[in-house]
Amino acid sequence: MISSMLSLLSLSEPTPEDAITVKTLVFKPKTPKSQAPVPVIVVAPASVQTPGGSIAKAAAVKEPRLANDELTQEFFGIQAREFTIASLGNDHVGKVKVLVEQSIQADEKNYVISNSTGKLILTGKQLLGFLESFEPVIVDFAAKEAPKPETKTEAKIDDAKLIGVTVDKERDFSGWYQQILTKGEMLDYYDVSGCYILRPASYAIWEKIQRWFDDRIKADGVSNAYFPMFVSSRVLEKEKDHVEGFAPEVAWVTRAGSSDLEEPIAIRPTSETVMYPYYAKWIRSHRDLPLKLNQWNSVVRWEFKHPQPFLRTREFLWQEGHTAHLTKEEASEQVSKILDLYAGVYEELLAVPVIKGVKTENEKFAGGLYTTTCEGYIPTTGRGIQGATSHHLGQNFSKMFNISVENPLGPEHPKIYAHQTSWGLSTRVIGVMVMIHSDNKGLVIPPRVAQNQVVIIPVGITNKTTKEIENKLYETCSELNSRLKKADVRTITDFRDNYSPGWKFSDWELKGVPVRLEVGPKDIANNSVMAVRRDNGEKTALSLDTVETELPKLLEAIQKSLFDAAKEKYDSHRKIVTEWKDFVPALNKKNVILAPWCGVPECEDDIKDSSAKKDDGEDYETDEKSPSMGAKSLCIPYDQPELKEGQKCVKCGKPAVNFTMFGRSY
Amino acid sequence: MISSMLSLLSLSEPTPEDAITVKTLVFKPKTPKSQAPVPVIVVAPASVQTPGGSIAKAAAVKEPRLANDELTQEFFGIQAREFTIASLGNDHVGKVKVLVEQSIQADEKNYVISNSTGKLILTGKQLLGFLESFEPVIVDFAAKEAPKPETKTEAKIDDAKLIGVTVDKERDFSGWYQQILTKGEMLDYYDVSGCYILRPASYAIWEKIQRWFDDRIKADGVSNAYFPMFVSSRVLEKEKDHVEGFAPEVAWVTRAGSSDLEEPIAIRPTSETVMYPYYAKWIRSHRDLPLKLNQWNSVVRWEFKHPQPFLRTREFLWQEGHTAHLTKEEASEQVSKILDLYAGVYEELLAVPVIKGVKTENEKFAGGLYTTTCEGYIPTTGRGIQGATSHHLGQNFSKMFNISVENPLGPEHPKIYAHQTSWGLSTRVIGVMVMIHSDNKGLVIPPRVAQNQVVIIPVGITNKTTKEIENKLYETCSELNSRLKKADVRTITDFRDNYSPGWKFSDWELKGVPVRLEVGPKDIANNSVMAVRRDNGEKTALSLDTVETELPKLLEAIQKSLFDAAKEKYDSHRKIVTEWKDFVPALNKKNVILAPWCGVPECEDDIKDSSAKKDDGEDYETDEKSPSMGAKSLCIPYDQPELKEGQKCVKCGKPAVNFTMFGRSY
Ligand SMILES: [Zn+2]
Ligand SMILES: [Zn+2]
Repeated sequence: MISSMLSLLSLSEPTPEDAITVKTLVFKPKTPKSQAPVPVIVVAPASVQTPGGSIAKAAAVKEPRLANDELTQEFFGIQAREFTIASLGNDHVGKVKVLVEQSIQADEKNYVISNSTGKLILTGKQLLGFLESFEPVIVDFAAKEAPKPETKTEAKIDDAKLIGVTVDKERDFSGWYQQILTKGEMLDYYDVSGCYILRPASYAIWEKIQRWFDDRIKADGVSNAYFPMFVSSRVLEKEKDHVEGFAPEVAWVTRAGSSDLEEPIAIRPTSETVMYPYYAKWIRSHRDLPLKLNQWNSVVRWEFKHPQPFLRTREFLWQEGHTAHLTKEEASEQVSKILDLYAGVYEELLAVPVIKGVKTENEKFAGGLYTTTCEGYIPTTGRGIQGATSHHLGQNFSKMFNISVENPLGPEHPKIYAHQTSWGLSTRVIGVMVMIHSDNKGLVIPPRVAQNQVVIIPVGITNKTTKEIENKLYETCSELNSRLKKADVRTITDFRDNYSPGWKFSDWELKGVPVRLEVGPKDIANNSVMAVRRDNGEKTALSLDTVETELPKLLEAIQKSLFDAAKEKYDSHRKIVTEWKDFVPALNKKNVILAPWCGVPECEDDIKDSSAKKDDGEDYETDEKSPSMGAKSLCIPYDQPELKEGQKCVKCGKPAVNFTMFGRSY
Repeated sequence: MISSMLSLLSLSEPTPEDAITVKTLVFKPKTPKSQAPVPVIVVAPASVQTPGGSIAKAAAVKEPRLANDELTQEFFGIQAREFTIASLGNDHVGKVKVLVEQSIQADEKNYVISNSTGKLILTGKQLLGFLESFEPVIVDFAAKEAPKPETKTEAKIDDAKLIGVTVDKERDFSGWYQQILTKGEMLDYYDVSGCYILRPASYAIWEKIQRWFDDRIKADGVSNAYFPMFVSSRVLEKEKDHVEGFAPEVAWVTRAGSSDLEEPIAIRPTSETVMYPYYAKWIRSHRDLPLKLNQWNSVVRWEFKHPQPFLRTREFLWQEGHTAHLTKEEASEQVSKILDLYAGVYEELLAVPVIKGVKTENEKFAGGLYTTTCEGYIPTTGRGIQGATSHHLGQNFSKMFNISVENPLGPEHPKIYAHQTSWGLSTRVIGVMVMIHSDNKGLVIPPRVAQNQVVIIPVGITNKTTKEIENKLYETCSELNSRLKKADVRTITDFRDNYSPGWKFSDWELKGVPVRLEVGPKDIANNSVMAVRRDNGEKTALSLDTVETELPKLLEAIQKSLFDAAKEKYDSHRKIVTEWKDFVPALNKKNVILAPWCGVPECEDDIKDSSAKKDDGEDYETDEKSPSMGAKSLCIPYDQPELKEGQKCVKCGKPAVNFTMFGRSY
């Protein structure tokens, strides 16, 4: 009855401007196996945090977790993400618990409830009216008595200054990440969801990466080009297997000015189908091979999952390289060369250790032969993160697009379809770098990619300082700045007269500048300056005579320290596990796992499901769209532990074929 | 009656796959003033060229020109571009002449006729049936007897090789331009209209320009950033005056995957409204000024005019810089600095001379204070072309977006709205470069931007050449290649064994490589190589001992020659005209004009209208959407001829305020 009443309202009406968006979540509490679970429905304004602890308390249940599709299918006949209160019928009365956030009152305010099929607009009165038969519990989720470590307010750093980060990295990682990016001026949020502004501090890092990678691929014979961002639907859909993975995320242009287009035009999610018809046209003889093109562009994937700056964005910058070769081996070599460069971007530029390997069948690029990857690790959450992938496409695309040449052995031999590769590295790398190195004081940028490597700050000016000494101080700073610039150190000075040195120190720490040079009258008298490292706070007096040679060394030392620290954490949290009973406990200790594995896709699915029961310690809503965070395979590392004779798969007991790295992952 | 029959058919049906698109054009013949003009209606497949000469002959009229809106309004009550045969009624019988292309027969083939309001699908039988009462003349437009210089087939170059350009630059400029770009491998056509593929040869030029310009703006304190490509309609429409100019060309995303978006989202046509809300947020104090950001991105303007590679494309690459300053003067300086860099891109890199100046009120950027520009000139068509613009925005945007700071003099003084600038340079520059320097042999790329500056080709191998000598030859070529690369000359070798040296010469000429080095056994014996210039064919023997120093000099000499030749043409076709009677004749001689002018917008409109009567010597259909090519103002040049006391406006006779440059233009 409720459903039918609601369905009357689901005709699309214009949304009133002051309408409040409401989320409707289904939680499954921990329930003894002998009992049927009683789902908990939470109805709250989207802007209100509804931590698990508060839900547990209000509903008197244990460990509520966002329900997976299995439960919602069973109870409501729909997928979890499609759930709204319209899914509730009278037959659910007594079988579910309903919590309503306290601000929703039986008044005339408008509330919007939506899923992918439509939206409802209800007054508070109607909303509470429909829920009445469920005897909802009214909950004040923002109340102070909410339970301890999970709540965001508790993650506040006690002595945080106003300008600095106010959220603790360990206790509220996503809140910290957001603050660090915005306060560190890397990024700003934008009014189109899932899109972000890359401010100069982050774009400069991207430019460093571009230059490094671009020089190297060009030396390898790759040329840059630019293909259009638009794809006709006919072309996009040419390679069915390939497009299937992207179709749900493709953005469509249907209108220009006030005219509807005759046919909708897609914005590229990636450019295989854009480029390959031209490969077929341009490659006429084996002498045209290899063809190696790359483009630096932006692509659009309209993901409906919770967006995350750098890691999951609807538009992102990347490079995509596409090569075609005469032989499979040559394509393999290309794939490896690029993977090495990707690992180089992470390890040499961003000081981020990665593990190189091959993706499993489940995780490889659809329509390709195999996918190589470099996989990183975020210590704070214990999750793996895909760094960048380089695909061997085999001949799948070349057969589809007829990218072929006459056999060099002669026309009596069969024609040869090109062996292709494709590979992409995106601005995601910046997010990984930030998550790994930065701290509660702000960003920590590795020197090799830092826009500013050194900030020179005059210090020690007091009321007693003479004008002469003050002038001398500024002069010395400026000279030092020019000298260091000539020595190719990226320096800036901070001569702002309205801030104290202490305020400036915090400001540049927030921005992650690797070294600050403090220059005071006493330092000048001693012919020295004080260098302070951002990463560990260490202070070193440097002689003004040798500062041009010493500073680059210090910057390299910082680069190495950052890498070593990250590597130590990755290495110590990569555990070999051979028995299933140790698998989930190891995951829960923020490890990634190297386990002997059978290589069977269904076994991987099973591992994912079986490891999905526990959450990973982060706030549940951070990933409310993918609540059941099971471990997936990250890669089959090239660097393999020795597989014992007769070693069995960690999960299914079949013979293991290799060690595979598993982990919860971004 | 015809109209009403047709309107029955205009219900939208799916277009049959094999339907042939038909164009319906209205021409106005030259008619004595005492007589009413008899419009000529041409009905032909869109793919068939219908040159004016053929029309003149078939309809027995003089100088038919595409009709302007005035005529179509008078005759058919509609704009020229909206004309279709559905506009013809029985009352037009005897008042118009109708020409039908011979391939359209009274059969069952399907023909599509469309304008912006819809489309008709007719069989050949229906089509000819409707036209019957007009007694149409059947014309074979492709026939050999078509009159001389205007026809495309006649523009064929007699001795053109199969691989080379087959169309003459002077006789069929747009056909030549298309061939030169595609055969020269700069660009390929794409299946989304108005979008093109930038192949490595053109993208490499863009990269050279990027590097040059980017280094210079960074030295000037500009930082790069990246703002999203999407704009919400709310934000896009914030600045009405500004958006008005772009609204008809904005592409809208309305769907993602299979879901309709709640609100359509625009793709940026330019980023003022994207960026300025953040300028307002980021600029909090006068110490945050100037803020100077730039981005290298692509923008989309869904133009409905005839697209033209590089010059008018629906997606194009550019940079857009946006700065905010404390004072108007500082913003003015920024505008000038950038304009100088733009002129530098043209003159120093692309060897294209430009005239710097200010746009008139009619032509300036809407919503700005003033627009500066550098204007080029295409000798073959005699048209001006806008090179790049740098705008002083004044405080219009800062007031709209509240980009303001407290007055540095103190809070008792009024707050200050930022003075802003914006400036953009697009891949159009490449089109201008190609149009100016290239010739009937192919592209001519100025050395400073050429991807490959020198190609080394082994020559003189005959049946009698010993293996030893041949090996020595290839070795010498390879050594030379390495030596030149070390000397920072961008060289390549062409060792393809399946082509003759002559074929290779033509191939590299087509691609515009500035110098080819011919290396033969005899050259080696003489310790020399033969350098052949692409621009003028001149051959110079260079000693192998000094080739590293001589070649860079030769490349610079070519760069200078190209610039000088283009400058001579521009200078000799920029005519001072002080009396209106000389204005149109000068235009028709492929000149741009410097004329004393009153500065009144309506007078500019009048100049445009009054100079629009004659076509500019190009095939009419090249600009069928803008047939009445009047002269518009290109700029008010900074470099002004002396204005005599009492000098009158060339058109209206009011006192002239300056010399303004007018021309037909792209
Ligand atoms: Zn298994
Ligand atoms: Zn005038």
